[in-house]
Amino acid sequence: MAGIPIKFGILGCADIARKVSRAITLSPYSTLYAVGSRSVEKASNFAKDNGFPASAKVYGSYDALLDDPDVDAVYVPLPTSLHIKWAVLAAQKKKHLLLEKPVALNVKEFDVILEACESSGVQFMDATMWMHHPRTAKMREFLNDPQRFGQFKSVHSVFTFTADPDFLENDIRVKPDLDALGALGDVGWYTIRAILWSVDFELPKSVIALPGPVFNKAGVVLSCGASLYWEDGKVATLHCSFLSNMTMNVTAIGTKGSLHLCDFVIPFEEEKASFSTSVESGFTDLVTGWAPKPSEHVVTTDLPQEAQMVKEFSRLVGLIKAEGAKPETKWPTFSRKTQLVLDAVKTSIDRGFESVEVIS
Amino acid sequence: MAGIPIKFGILGCADIARKVSRAITLSPYSTLYAVGSRSVEKASNFAKDNGFPASAKVYGSYDALLDDPDVDAVYVPLPTSLHIKWAVLAAQKKKHLLLEKPVALNVKEFDVILEACESSGVQFMDATMWMHHPRTAKMREFLNDPQRFGQFKSVHSVFTFTADPDFLENDIRVKPDLDALGALGDVGWYTIRAILWSVDFELPKSVIALPGPVFNKAGVVLSCGASLYWEDGKVATLHCSFLSNMTMNVTAIGTKGSLHLCDFVIPFEEEKASFSTSVESGFTDLVTGWAPKPSEHVVTTDLPQEAQMVKEFSRLVGLIKAEGAKPETKWPTFSRKTQLVLDAVKTSIDRGFESVEVIS
Repeated sequence: MAGIPIKFGILGCADIARKVSRAITLSPYSTLYAVGSRSVEKASNFAKDNGFPASAKVYGSYDALLDDPDVDAVYVPLPTSLHIKWAVLAAQKKKHLLLEKPVALNVKEFDVILEACESSGVQFMDATMWMHHPRTAKMREFLNDPQRFGQFKSVHSVFTFTADPDFLENDIRVKPDLDALGALGDVGWYTIRAILWSVDFELPKSVIALPGPVFNKAGVVLSCGASLYWEDGKVATLHCSFLSNMTMNVTAIGTKGSLHLCDFVIPFEEEKASFSTSVESGFTDLVTGWAPKPSEHVVTTDLPQEAQMVKEFSRLVGLIKAEGAKPETKWPTFSRKTQLVLDAVKTSIDRGFESVEVIS
Repeated sequence: MAGIPIKFGILGCADIARKVSRAITLSPYSTLYAVGSRSVEKASNFAKDNGFPASAKVYGSYDALLDDPDVDAVYVPLPTSLHIKWAVLAAQKKKHLLLEKPVALNVKEFDVILEACESSGVQFMDATMWMHHPRTAKMREFLNDPQRFGQFKSVHSVFTFTADPDFLENDIRVKPDLDALGALGDVGWYTIRAILWSVDFELPKSVIALPGPVFNKAGVVLSCGASLYWEDGKVATLHCSFLSNMTMNVTAIGTKGSLHLCDFVIPFEEEKASFSTSVESGFTDLVTGWAPKPSEHVVTTDLPQEAQMVKEFSRLVGLIKAEGAKPETKWPTFSRKTQLVLDAVKTSIDRGFESVEVIS
């Protein structure tokens, strides 16, 4: 394919950038081209430690990286509060944009980022990696099959992990000036994404946060829950927390079938992942067991999900570069809907658990 | 053990009584002694079809069965609205009482039943079978272990099944004059029990039903959800429905560990059942997989859970009969707490999803 490999610049040396750097190396259509940090030494060490080629550019500022005309695309793992500044600037400099989640502090900010991307004709994608695992496509087939899943009724998602004392004190995700959305923006993002994905991104009409969220002293959410309501009666619940042991569940239930998995964000293993389905479940005659029992589906992958993400992003960028294709709009649409619902949960918390209408 | 086998009378020929009749046969301390129905023919057929010995008594009324002085204990699978009449009469006739769930239409009615049991010194137990599976005891050990589970944070339970059109038209569980609590009293009972069980039966301080319950034309709940709140910050969610495919999950999360199972009410298989735990879960260095991964625990059982229930009930009755022991109070306490929370969910629905205090 012409226009590839896509030359990536990494904006900042966050931990997660190590994983994505490896993914850029693994992906067939992309190459590690540059890294920028506020310190050139840090950038240099990062490049050395993460398999950058000797020819890679090392910049001591984000601006310098964005000024490099050979950078095709940037991966931006900066704190959420910095997204609007750097994502907009990257788009203005015609860099295609792979942006960490949450994509912004709120949808108003995100719309500014999207406008910049549209003006420049660059591809936008958020870095929700599990969307790109081949397992996700297999699960989509199940949910879309009226014979197996039937009419959608409800979906329930939980994502929690126990943050250690250092995280709770120092991580950007508990700092009101960096990632003000806290656990809701981090683990909560994934539960909202899973819910929206499961209903094919139909927005709920309203959202109610559940009472009892936990905040840190600075007012950042460490744990919360919410329920979501659709016009046709579909319902969803989510629970997200930095304060309880790792749990990563999605349960989607239709009139005919159920889908369940316990590792939706990070599969237990890199090379293969599974999910469980049951279809028209019933019991044995005396209700002493299930008939039929649920089925386990194993999906193997030649590339880890983050490399699948980079591959798809690079493919889209390659089409734009080589053939003048338009950016794929579904990815920014998914991001925006996720942010919209996230905003509604936050608003409901702020308003004492009132029902908040979701208006696109 | 003296005083056994316990002679059981079955009050009514509900479908579920077939399963419990088999359990009485399987259990070492009990025997099928009598069955009573509103029609002697129906009772007779039931006895013939369900392995009753030739000597078994067949009665054409519930009264007649209760008047038989040789009946030690009764199993009562009658519609919930009839519990107060027949459970009280059974207790007054000194019959030990194994009562189907929900135990009553509300806790006020249930207290009348309990008073009758206490006056007569008979054992009360509700027929929540999974409580007696050896898996349940193994899961209890995990939840009680501060090294593995830590401090309790949240629990989430779902129990749904798709009722067929005949059920939705004719089953007692959708009839306001028979089982007015509908899906909440049936599948919802189990989710509430699982939540209370998981927190060692500490009552929540408040309950909020989630908006969007579905009712049938007669006003009986076919689907609903709720959230529960404890003084120390623990939270729980439940979802129960007659309108979506069978799903039977419990996820309990502590600061150190998580517990998960997908068949908590009826294990997939009769002879063995499993659950999954994870302890101090983390990721591989690059967050490409879990380390450690969750563990699967398989628990085999020589007797199905319903026979374990009959065995434990009969053991307690045997102790009362042979040694003048006092009835075991934990079982009616578990029932009462479950009913209390169920009542609070119902009240919250009736009051437009207000927060309802749970007062014991």
